[in-house]
Amino acid sequence: MTSPGPADRPVLALDLGGTQLRTALVLPDGRLVARRAERTPTDGPAMVEAAGRALGTASAEAASAGVGAPQALGISAPGPLDPATGVLIDPPNLDRRLWGFPLATTLGQALAVDAYLERDTQVAALAEGQFGAARGIADYVYLTVSTGIGGGVVIGGRLMRGPDLLAGELGHLTIDLDGPLCGCGARGHLEAISSGTGIARAARERGLGDISAARVAALEDAGDETAHQIMEYARRAFAAALVTIVDLFNPTRVVVGGGIAIGQGERLLRPARDAVERLAFRRQAARVDIVPALLGDDVGLVGALSLVRLARVGEDRDRRMA
Amino acid sequence: MTSPGPADRPVLALDLGGTQLRTALVLPDGRLVARRAERTPTDGPAMVEAAGRALGTASAEAASAGVGAPQALGISAPGPLDPATGVLIDPPNLDRRLWGFPLATTLGQALAVDAYLERDTQVAALAEGQFGAARGIADYVYLTVSTGIGGGVVIGGRLMRGPDLLAGELGHLTIDLDGPLCGCGARGHLEAISSGTGIARAARERGLGDISAARVAALEDAGDETAHQIMEYARRAFAAALVTIVDLFNPTRVVVGGGIAIGQGERLLRPARDAVERLAFRRQAARVDIVPALLGDDVGLVGALSLVRLARVGEDRDRRMA
Repeated sequence: MTSPGPADRPVLALDLGGTQLRTALVLPDGRLVARRAERTPTDGPAMVEAAGRALGTASAEAASAGVGAPQALGISAPGPLDPATGVLIDPPNLDRRLWGFPLATTLGQALAVDAYLERDTQVAALAEGQFGAARGIADYVYLTVSTGIGGGVVIGGRLMRGPDLLAGELGHLTIDLDGPLCGCGARGHLEAISSGTGIARAARERGLGDISAARVAALEDAGDETAHQIMEYARRAFAAALVTIVDLFNPTRVVVGGGIAIGQGERLLRPARDAVERLAFRRQAARVDIVPALLGDDVGLVGALSLVRLARVGEDRDRRMA
Repeated sequence: MTSPGPADRPVLALDLGGTQLRTALVLPDGRLVARRAERTPTDGPAMVEAAGRALGTASAEAASAGVGAPQALGISAPGPLDPATGVLIDPPNLDRRLWGFPLATTLGQALAVDAYLERDTQVAALAEGQFGAARGIADYVYLTVSTGIGGGVVIGGRLMRGPDLLAGELGHLTIDLDGPLCGCGARGHLEAISSGTGIARAARERGLGDISAARVAALEDAGDETAHQIMEYARRAFAAALVTIVDLFNPTRVVVGGGIAIGQGERLLRPARDAVERLAFRRQAARVDIVPALLGDDVGLVGALSLVRLARVGEDRDRRMA
């Protein structure tokens, strides 16, 4: 009797969101075991402790469930972060005491496994490629339209990462040169216009009060003209971004996820498809389809498996080249 | 005595520009032999004939110069075109009778060599990487600011091409949502604002008459306020595009070529560097430098060598995978 090889063993997964902290074991086929979610503690040290505790529980359950010991830990977290060192840089949505914190090493040592850290959007892009809406597709773009806007670009089956592994910031496409200020300090970025934060800020500035993007959408449905203008601007900017993305990457598929995209559904995707059809280069437009994401709330957990695979492939290559 | 292998033999090069038709032999070290330039005939069939004649002469000179028979032909031409089949699609700058014309096959058969066709901007990107300003750099972006704006993106040493080999259209970044109309039909693309065509069109619309972008720049230097506003808008849009490019691709270098960029020099590049420094993500900004292209008018000829190498690597891979 042989013990299972690494590829047959589950992966520990941590999805560290601004609001929810999720953990699970991911089996090699993508199924989740010992799935748990709790509110993310706002206090940094408490958050690391909560993550460690939940992962420890999941790890213990791996033994009792007979699925083999976890081979590694994959962590999805808000950027910016440094995947090479597993360190959080200065994520605006997390307690400042975590800026510069070596999250992967800390949790990996506590759990006695190799640990890998990657941006939530990149993890989601990988997950949708392995198990979701871009399965079997070598050239695709993943976009999430949520509190912020982010994405991941896969070209010829490889995640576009760049020399610092920081590439793929699709929320920072400049769309409207003199448009609203983005969290990054620039003006008119896609995220500043079409994200939940962008829509809510526009609502505040236009006198609708301190309401959520979902509420702005509901007001639009109820016939409010200001809400309609705000949502229309968000959809129009998103459509223009899609034309640019299709011209630029020539993808076979664009997968769109995130709370705002799910809430808006075809109301967001149809104008984007129409714009691509009318305005993108003919062949690029004929190649691409624009579809909703499939994996929902579990995308960051499922993606931990894809992340560990990607990291292991990279380590193999580095060893061969050393 | 052995005859030289393919990699030791020169490549025939054709750079088919809207105004100049250039041909040469490119030696394996990038040196040019039998270099020739003439005005591009506006008549499509005459253009193909002129190209065939010039290439035939270059080929004959290869024999007399003792540099070995050409191993292949590399063609740089205005897009859109289909590199897989070597067919021009519908390039707005070439006679309509050439739309759909199988340029690579036609010239390759006439000269009895394999022939490869690629977009001028992609060829230039390859050339700057092999012999120019991005030599030895694995992750870079090439941008040309000229009559139009185009580019090429190299990631991990590979040209980003996409499933139809049409990726890399950096001129079609949406920069100003309600900005001027682009040749492609969309509004506010970088090319519509910062290219020679965009600047000249703005001059016409703002009452400066039917003048070139170089003339608008000269008027700015002479203190004309309208010309200044037009040039300032072009530079500002270019700077915003650079921030997006740096955030998105995390390149080690951005190489900027083309007539407008050469004419403007630091006046175009300095504000772009400043914007990247202030507004791009910190690590991406620290990684990148933004520099002028090195290869000048010969870039399309030198790049023919890079193009043939790229195509041959692709063919090798396809054979191994078949």
